[in-house]
Amino acid sequence: MNDAPASQDPLLIQPIRKRETLADQIYGRVLELIAAGQIAEGAKLPSEHQISERFSVSRPVVREALARLRDDGIIVARHGIGSFVRRRPPQGLIDYAGADDVAGLMRCMEARLAVEPAAARLAALRAAPDDLSRIDSALAELEQVMRSREPVIELDFAFHMAVARASGNEIFARMLDTTRAQMQAAIGVAQSLTRIGTDQRIEAVITEHRQIAEAIRARDGEGAALLMSYHLTQARQRVTDQRRRV
Amino acid sequence: MNDAPASQDPLLIQPIRKRETLADQIYGRVLELIAAGQIAEGAKLPSEHQISERFSVSRPVVREALARLRDDGIIVARHGIGSFVRRRPPQGLIDYAGADDVAGLMRCMEARLAVEPAAARLAALRAAPDDLSRIDSALAELEQVMRSREPVIELDFAFHMAVARASGNEIFARMLDTTRAQMQAAIGVAQSLTRIGTDQRIEAVITEHRQIAEAIRARDGEGAALLMSYHLTQARQRVTDQRRRV
Amino acid sequence: MNDAPASQDPLLIQPIRKRETLADQIYGRVLELIAAGQIAEGAKLPSEHQISERFSVSRPVVREALARLRDDGIIVARHGIGSFVRRRPPQGLIDYAGADDVAGLMRCMEARLAVEPAAARLAALRAAPDDLSRIDSALAELEQVMRSREPVIELDFAFHMAVARASGNEIFARMLDTTRAQMQAAIGVAQSLTRIGTDQRIEAVITEHRQIAEAIRARDGEGAALLMSYHLTQARQRVTDQRRRV
Amino acid sequence: MNDAPASQDPLLIQPIRKRETLADQIYGRVLELIAAGQIAEGAKLPSEHQISERFSVSRPVVREALARLRDDGIIVARHGIGSFVRRRPPQGLIDYAGADDVAGLMRCMEARLAVEPAAARLAALRAAPDDLSRIDSALAELEQVMRSREPVIELDFAFHMAVARASGNEIFARMLDTTRAQMQAAIGVAQSLTRIGTDQRIEAVITEHRQIAEAIRARDGEGAALLMSYHLTQARQRVTDQRRRV
Repeated sequence: MNDAPASQDPLLIQPIRKRETLADQIYGRVLELIAAGQIAEGAKLPSEHQISERFSVSRPVVREALARLRDDGIIVARHGIGSFVRRRPPQGLIDYAGADDVAGLMRCMEARLAVEPAAARLAALRAAPDDLSRIDSALAELEQVMRSREPVIELDFAFHMAVARASGNEIFARMLDTTRAQMQAAIGVAQSLTRIGTDQRIEAVITEHRQIAEAIRARDGEGAALLMSYHLTQARQRVTDQRRRV
Repeated sequence: MNDAPASQDPLLIQPIRKRETLADQIYGRVLELIAAGQIAEGAKLPSEHQISERFSVSRPVVREALARLRDDGIIVARHGIGSFVRRRPPQGLIDYAGADDVAGLMRCMEARLAVEPAAARLAALRAAPDDLSRIDSALAELEQVMRSREPVIELDFAFHMAVARASGNEIFARMLDTTRAQMQAAIGVAQSLTRIGTDQRIEAVITEHRQIAEAIRARDGEGAALLMSYHLTQARQRVTDQRRRV
Repeated sequence: MNDAPASQDPLLIQPIRKRETLADQIYGRVLELIAAGQIAEGAKLPSEHQISERFSVSRPVVREALARLRDDGIIVARHGIGSFVRRRPPQGLIDYAGADDVAGLMRCMEARLAVEPAAARLAALRAAPDDLSRIDSALAELEQVMRSREPVIELDFAFHMAVARASGNEIFARMLDTTRAQMQAAIGVAQSLTRIGTDQRIEAVITEHRQIAEAIRARDGEGAALLMSYHLTQARQRVTDQRRRV
Repeated sequence: MNDAPASQDPLLIQPIRKRETLADQIYGRVLELIAAGQIAEGAKLPSEHQISERFSVSRPVVREALARLRDDGIIVARHGIGSFVRRRPPQGLIDYAGADDVAGLMRCMEARLAVEPAAARLAALRAAPDDLSRIDSALAELEQVMRSREPVIELDFAFHMAVARASGNEIFARMLDTTRAQMQAAIGVAQSLTRIGTDQRIEAVITEHRQIAEAIRARDGEGAALLMSYHLTQARQRVTDQRRRV
C-alpha cells in the first residue's frame, strides 16, 4: 500500500473484476437450462458444489452467478434448503441476447433502476416547456411505431434520454449515454419479445411510458420516480418470465 | 418531427441546453452576493423581476437559477411571499470553485446522490473479500492523510470508486468515472474547506466514511445506502453553510 | 397554551388542528365543482383570494385545501400562474364518500403509503409458511369475489392485514388497525367504483394484489415494497380519475 | 378456510403470533450472552442446532431470533459459514430494558423508521407556523433538559409527535400514539444510556434533532426524511453498540 497505489490509481486502469466474465458465463449456462425446461419451474437447482463440479469453476464464481440469478428474480433461495426456479425465462431471451450476455443486460437494468427514477423525479420538478414537448414527441412516436410492431429501439432510448435531460442535470443524460450500447441491446431484447407478444403487452408497455410522462407533466415527483421504477422492474420481469402474457 | 429526427438523434448531438450556462452564471452571481453577506442570512432576495433586470436575463433563466439555489439548500421559498436566504455559504466555496462552477459542482453532488447509495446497498449485499479490503485500504489511507491535513482528493475518490466496484455491477463504477473530473473538483472544494476547518469537522468526515464501510462489511444494505445518502448530503451542506463548524 | 404546555402535554389531549375540518370542507367543495365539470379538466382554478371570498374562509385554509388537492393529484400548480385541473374525479367518488370525507380518505391512503410498503418489504424477508398461506387464502378469496362483483371490503382489508402481520412486527398490523374504519371506508369507495367499472379494471386490481403476494413469496423485498407503493398509488388514482378505464 | 373465516375476521381477534414471545426470549438470551462478553465481538455464534438444543426450542424459533438479531445489527451472517457477533450491546441495554423486552423495543424502532421519515417529509412540505413553533419549543426544552442530564422522555416523545402532527395528516400522530408506551420505553432506555454517556453523545443527539427541525423549517422534504431516518438508525445503534462513544 505504500508503493504509490493512489497515484497510479489501480482501481481504474485494471480491468473490472476478471471473475465477472466467468460468473456471467455460469449465469448464462444455468439460465439456458432453466429456459429449456431442463430444470423446471419450482424445481430445486443442483447444489453449489454440483454446479461448481459440472462447469469446472470455483465455488465463489458459482455463488456469484446464483446470487445474480436471485437478484434478477429467476431463482429464489430457501434458507438452509437450497435454490429453486422462480421463473422460466422465455427462450427468446437466450435467442435474442445470447446466453453469455444476459447477465450484463440485467446489470444494465439494475443500474438504470438507480439512475432513472431519480432523474424522473427531478424532471417532474424542473422540466421546461421544451423538455415536456420532447418527452411528448418521443412518446407519440413510440406509441405509433410500437402498435405497428416495428422496431423502436432508438425511440425507446430517446424517450428515456428526454426524461433524463428534463432533469435539468446533464450528468444524468451523460450517465445513461455511458451505457448506451448495453441499454439499446437490453431495449432490443425486450422489444423483440414484446413485438412477438400479445396486443395487451404492447398496450401495457405504452401505458407504462405514458404514465411516466403524465406524472412529469403534472409535476408529481414522487409519482414519476415510482412509475419509472415500476416500468423498469416490469420490463425486467417481462424478459425473464415466460408465462407472463402482459 | 417528421423530418427524420429519430435517426439523426438530435437529443444527443446537440449541446445540452444552452440555457444551462446562463442559469449557472446567475446562480453564481446570486451566490456571491449571499457569500459576501450583501444579502444577509434570513433576508429576502430581490424579486425574480428585479434579478432579471439587474443581470439582463430572461425570467425563466432567473427562475431556474433560484430553483437550483433552493434545491441546494441556499435559499428557501415562502409561498406567495418570496425567497429568503437559508444559509450563507463560506467565502471559500466561491474562492476554491469559482462562482460560475458552483452550480455544476452541486449537480455533480445531486447525481452522486442518485447513484452512490444504490451502489453502496449492492456493495453490502455482494462485496467479495478483495472488495472489502480495497475499501478498508482506501479508508485507512484516507483517515491518515486527512488527519495530517494533506490533500486527499485521489483517496476520497478511490474510496467511493471502491464502493461502486464492490457493487458487483461495473456500470456503477463507469457512471462515476463519467463524472470523474467534476467529482474530483467537488471533492477538492470540500476538502479545501475541511482542511482549514476544525478537528471535529475532520473527524466527522472520517466517521461518515467509516460508517459506510462498516455497514458494507456487516452486509447491511439499507444501512449502507442511508449512510451514503447522509454523507453526501452532509458534504453538500458543509460546503454551503458558513456557520457550520462540524 | 402559555401555561405549562409541556407538562400537560397539549400535543395529545387537544383535538388535532381545528383547521382540518374547514380545509377538508373547502377541499370537498372544490372537488365537487371539478367532479361536476363546472371547472373543466385543464381549466384554471379561481385564485386563492376568490375561493377564500366565495366560501368565506381565510387564505391559509384555502391554501391548505389546494395543497391537498395538489398532493392528491387533482390539480397541478404552475409557478406564478395558478392552479389547473389535472384530473376530473368520477362523480361516484363524491356520491360514495361524501364530499366532506374525501380529504380524509386521501389522508388514509397517504398514511398507508408510508406504512404498507415497509411492511411488505419485511414480509418478503420474514414471512413464515403460515403467513404465506394466509396471504394466499386472502388473495384467492379476493379474486373470486371480485370477479363476481360482490363487495370485498373485508377481504381486501384482510389481504393487507395479512401482509402487515407477515412483517413479523406486530406494530405494523396495529398501526393499520388504527385506521381500520377509514381504511375500510376508502376500500369501500374504491370498490364501489371498481365494481361498476370494466372487466379490465377488475383484472388490474387483482393483478396488483397478486404481484405483491408473488414478490413476498419470492423473498423479493424491494419488489414487494415497490409493488405495494404502485398498488396504493394506482388505487388512489382510480378513485380520482374519471377518464381512467383500467 | 371455507367455514366463514372472513366474517369472523380471525386475523384480528387471535393474538399476534404466539411464536413471537418465544423468539423474543431467545433473542434476549443470546443478547445477554453477547452483552456479558460470553460470546465475544467477532466470534462465531453457536449453530442454530446448538442454540435450539440449549434452550429447548424449535429451529424456526431460533431462526427467527437470529434473523432479528441480524436485522438489529447485533450479528452478521456469512453465507454458508454461520453468524458472527457484529456489535456488543452495552450492559445497560439489558439492565434498563430487561432482556425479554429488547426485541420488542427494536421492533418499535423498526416501525418508527417506516412512519416517521414519511411524516417528516410531509411536515417539511406542509407545516403551518404554529406547527413550526411547536417543534421549536419541544426542541429548545429538549436541548436544555438533555444538557442538564435530566430525564426527557416526555420531551423527546413530544418532539416526534410535533413533527408527526406537522405532517398535516392526523393519522401519522395516531399511529405513533399507538406505540406510545413502547416508544416511551425505547426512548427511556436510549436516554438512560445517553445520560451516563459522554458530552459528545448528548450533543450528537441534540444535533440530530436540530437538523430535522431545520430541514422542516427550510421546506426540505427529502432532507427531513433522510435526517429522521439517520436519527432513528443512530439511536438504534447507540443502544446496541457498547464501543460507541458518540
